[in-house]
Amino acid sequence: MTIEISEFKPMEEAITQNSINRYAELSGDFNPLHVDETFAAASEFGGTIAHGPMQLQPFFRSVSDWLGSDAFRPGTRVSVTYRHPARPGDSVHFEPLSLVETSDGHAVVRLEGRSVNQDGTLLAQIDAMLPLKGG
Amino acid sequence: MTIEISEFKPMEEAITQNSINRYAELSGDFNPLHVDETFAAASEFGGTIAHGPMQLQPFFRSVSDWLGSDAFRPGTRVSVTYRHPARPGDSVHFEPLSLVETSDGHAVVRLEGRSVNQDGTLLAQIDAMLPLKGG
Repeated sequence: MTIEISEFKPMEEAITQNSINRYAELSGDFNPLHVDETFAAASEFGGTIAHGPMQLQPFFRSVSDWLGSDAFRPGTRVSVTYRHPARPGDSVHFEPLSLVETSDGHAVVRLEGRSVNQDGTLLAQIDAMLPLKGG
Repeated sequence: MTIEISEFKPMEEAITQNSINRYAELSGDFNPLHVDETFAAASEFGGTIAHGPMQLQPFFRSVSDWLGSDAFRPGTRVSVTYRHPARPGDSVHFEPLSLVETSDGHAVVRLEGRSVNQDGTLLAQIDAMLPLKGG
C-alpha cells in the first residue's frame, strides 16, 4: 500500500436555493422540484431538492484535490447509489470510508465513501475505481 | 415491457470554456487542466478539458425529462466509466442504447447508454438503475 485513504480529504459544501438555480442554468435541468418553490412545497418532498449530481460535488472535489493537476484516467469508474435528496440549507459532506489498491491489469485505487448531510443522513453511497497514471 | 427506450430522449450540450469556468465556480473544482488555458496547453491534453461530471449533463437531462416532475427514487444507481475527456468546442451527446425493465424486489428500469462527442468519440459509458415510483 503506497496510497493511504488519508490522501483523500473530507470535503463539504453548502446547498442553497441559489446554488440549485445556478446548477439548473448550467445543466439545463429545470425540473420544478428543483427550481419552483411553490410546486415543490406541494410535492411529497415539501420543498425544493438539489439535483442529484450536486450531492457528488464534495466527492469530486476530494478526488480532484488528490489528482492535483492530473485528470481522470481513461477507465475511471464512478458508481453512485442515491439514498436521500439534499435540500437548501443542507451541508453536504463527502466522507472517505475505505481504500484498496488493486489491479485491473494495471494499478487501480478503489475508493468507497459516502455523502451525508449535517444530520448524518446518508445521501449517497459512492464507489470509485481510479486507475493510476502509468499504472 | 411498458417502458420503451424511446421515452429517453437523446440530448446534447455544447461545451465551452465559459461553461467550464462556470462549472468550476459552482463545484469549487479549479483544477488548472480545466481553467488555466496556458497550463493545459503545455499538458499532455494540449488544452483545457471539461470536468468529468459535465460529460453526464445530457444523460441527466434525458433522465430528468423522463421523470417529469418526479425525482430520483431512493436506490437509483448511476455507474459511469470515463473513456475520454470533453473539450471546449465539443458537442456532447447522450445516446440511449438499451433498456430492460427488471426487478430488484421492486420494479426497476435498467438503462444503458453512452456519451459521445460530435466525432463519435466515446466519452463515457453509462449504466443506470432507475427504481419505478410505487414499484
